[in-house]
Amino acid sequence: MALSRIAALSLAFVVALAPPLHAQQQPTAQSDFDQAVAAQAAANSRPGPRAIPAHVIPLPSEEISPQLQTLIASPYPSHMNADPKSAAEWKELIDRRAAQAIALLPAMKEQLAVAVQPAVIGGVKCFIVTPKAIPAANRNRLLVHVHGGGYVFGPGEAALPEAILLAGFGGFKVISVDYRMPPDFPYPAAMDDAMAVWKAAVKMAKPRNMAIFGTSTGGAMTLAMVLRAKAEKLPLPAAIAPGTPWSDIDKIGDSYASNEWTDNVLVSWDGWLGRAAKLYAAGHDLKDPYISPIYGDFHGFPPTILTSGTRDLFLSNTARTHRKLRRAGVVAELNVYEGMSHAQYSFDMNAPETKEAFTDIARFFDKHLGK
Amino acid sequence: MALSRIAALSLAFVVALAPPLHAQQQPTAQSDFDQAVAAQAAANSRPGPRAIPAHVIPLPSEEISPQLQTLIASPYPSHMNADPKSAAEWKELIDRRAAQAIALLPAMKEQLAVAVQPAVIGGVKCFIVTPKAIPAANRNRLLVHVHGGGYVFGPGEAALPEAILLAGFGGFKVISVDYRMPPDFPYPAAMDDAMAVWKAAVKMAKPRNMAIFGTSTGGAMTLAMVLRAKAEKLPLPAAIAPGTPWSDIDKIGDSYASNEWTDNVLVSWDGWLGRAAKLYAAGHDLKDPYISPIYGDFHGFPPTILTSGTRDLFLSNTARTHRKLRRAGVVAELNVYEGMSHAQYSFDMNAPETKEAFTDIARFFDKHLGK
Repeated sequence: MALSRIAALSLAFVVALAPPLHAQQQPTAQSDFDQAVAAQAAANSRPGPRAIPAHVIPLPSEEISPQLQTLIASPYPSHMNADPKSAAEWKELIDRRAAQAIALLPAMKEQLAVAVQPAVIGGVKCFIVTPKAIPAANRNRLLVHVHGGGYVFGPGEAALPEAILLAGFGGFKVISVDYRMPPDFPYPAAMDDAMAVWKAAVKMAKPRNMAIFGTSTGGAMTLAMVLRAKAEKLPLPAAIAPGTPWSDIDKIGDSYASNEWTDNVLVSWDGWLGRAAKLYAAGHDLKDPYISPIYGDFHGFPPTILTSGTRDLFLSNTARTHRKLRRAGVVAELNVYEGMSHAQYSFDMNAPETKEAFTDIARFFDKHLGK
Repeated sequence: MALSRIAALSLAFVVALAPPLHAQQQPTAQSDFDQAVAAQAAANSRPGPRAIPAHVIPLPSEEISPQLQTLIASPYPSHMNADPKSAAEWKELIDRRAAQAIALLPAMKEQLAVAVQPAVIGGVKCFIVTPKAIPAANRNRLLVHVHGGGYVFGPGEAALPEAILLAGFGGFKVISVDYRMPPDFPYPAAMDDAMAVWKAAVKMAKPRNMAIFGTSTGGAMTLAMVLRAKAEKLPLPAAIAPGTPWSDIDKIGDSYASNEWTDNVLVSWDGWLGRAAKLYAAGHDLKDPYISPIYGDFHGFPPTILTSGTRDLFLSNTARTHRKLRRAGVVAELNVYEGMSHAQYSFDMNAPETKEAFTDIARFFDKHLGK
C-alpha cells in the first residue's frame, strides 16, 4: 500500500509531460486530459494491476434525491482510521457511536409508527419491533433482523434503525437480535446468538412465513445463518435480504480497491474496518464460511434480494454474492443505487431512496413468503 | 479537468505529512496508509465532490475465469483518445477496428455453429444469424440485434459478434441491423434504420415471440426503439436485453467519473467516446430521449435484463436505467460482474462469463417470450 510512492510516480509522469513553465502556456482542459491520457497509458502499458491517477468525482445529481445527495456529499467519518489499542478504547468508540444512533430513535419510532419492546428469545437479548398497523397479509409473518456495524458497532438499541425502517415501511413484525460482540465476545458468539434466536423464532411462526435480513455485517450474518441452518438441519427462511453484505471479511474483492476513497462511509478496509475484522475473527480463518459466507455453498438458498450502490466499498461483496447465488440456481435480485456509498439507503428515513429500498425488500418478501 | 493540478495537490498533502528524509525512517505500509488518510480527510473535509488519490487496483481473481482475468488485466486500447479531424480520418479508424472484429468471425461461426446470411429488411442492410440447431421452443421466436460501437464502430459484418453469441448460446434466430452511422449519417439515421427493420420484422414473427437486444450503443438503441415503438403505436417486443446501455450519451452519471481510468475498455468519456457522441448527435439535444433514452418514459416497457460490471464506465448508465425501469413498475433484472469493465462479457467466446451472461439473457427471453 505504498500510496505516497504511487502518487509520486503518477505525478512524475504528469510533470514529465507538462509544458515547461517558462512557456507561460495556459493549460486547457483538453491539454490536461491529453497529458493524463499519456501518463495513464504509460502507467497501464503492461497487463496487470490498474494505476489510477488522482482525480475528482463530482457530486452526482440525476435521479438522486436532495437527502441522498447530502449523504453522498458528506466528508469521511471521523472514525475512519480509528485504531483502538485496548478493550476500553474500543468500548469508548462503540459507546460514543451508539449514543448518536440511539438519539435518532424516538423520531424514527414516531414517524414510522412502530413500538419497540425488549425481549429475551432463545436466551438472547432482542428487541421486538411492531408496527402500529400490520396489514392482514403480514399477520402471520415474522422477520428476524441482524444489525450491521462491523461486528463491533450497534449494541443494544443502537441495533434498531434498520429494523424500524423495514417494520415501518413494510408493515412487518421484526425481531432484532442484540447479539454479543467484540471486544468481549469474538466469533462465534455473534453467530451463536443469532442461531439461538432463529431456533426459538421458528417456533413463534411458520418458517415459510419468515425472512431474515440485515445490512453489511448483518448481511453477512444473514447469509451465514442460512449456511448454518442448512448444516444444522434447521428450517430455512422463505426469503432473505442481505443488504451490501460483508460476504468476504478479508480485503478480497475488486471494489475494496476500486471504490477505496470513493465510498465515504467505510472509505477503506485498511482503517477501523480491517481492525474490526481481525478483532472479530480472533485468529479464525477469514475464509471460514461462517465468517466470510462467500466461501459457503449457496445451493438451496431461499430467494434473496441484495442492495448496493455504485460507490459502495462492498459493491463487489454484493455482486459476487449475487452471481454466486445465481450460479447455484437461486432466485436473486440485485439493486444498485446511483452514487450511493455503503449502506446509505438506511441512513435517512426521509430520503425517498430509503423508502424505495425497504419497500422493494418488503415487496420481495411479500412475493416469496407464505401467509 | 485539471488533473495534473489535482495530482499535484494530492501529492502536496502527502509530502507535507511525510516524515523528513533525514530521519531515514523506513516508511511502512501502515504509515503510508495513515498519511493517505490524513491527506484524503483534508481533501474531503467539506461536503461536495470526492477527491481521490492516485492508487493502484490489483487484478482481482476470486470467482473470475482466467479468460476474463486476461481481459481485466489488459492495457488501455490504443484508440482511447483518438481525435479524428475529418470524415476520412474517422473512416480509417473505423475500418481498421472493423477489420480486427471481422477477422474473428469465422472461428466464432464455426465454434458456435451459426450461419450468417446478408439480407435487406425494411429497406435496411441486415444479417440473419441462424443457429444450425434451433430448439423447438425457439422455432417461432425472432430476435432483433442492434450492435454497439459508439454509433461509429461496427459497420457491416463487424456488427456480428454479439449476434453470433446470443444465436449460438441461446439457440435463437437473430436479425442484426447494419444501421447507417456517422461520419456520413448522424442521428436520426441509425434509429430510423433500426425502426424500419422493427416495422418489417414484426410481420416476420409475432411480436410477443420477439425481443430486441444490444450492448452499449446497441443497449441505448434497444431502449430508444421501445420508446419510439410506443410513440409510433407499433407493437412492442416481449422482452429486451440492453447490455450496459449508453442511456445517457452525455457525461452525466456517477461512474463516468468514479470508474474513469478504472474501465480499460472505454477509459473515459473525454476521449474518442465523447467525440463520437457529438458526431452522432450533430447538434441535437443530448437529452433527447431517442439519443439519451434515460430521459424517456419507461412506463409500459417489456421485461428487461441488464448487464454491467463493477469497473464499467457505464455502471451508472446501467444502474440508473434499472432503477428508472423499476420505478416505472417494469420487471427488470440487473447483473453486475466482478471486476468487469465495459461490455467485456461479449469479448471472448471462451470466457465462462460470456456463456453465463448470454445464457442468462436467453433464459430471461425464454421466460418472457411466447412460443
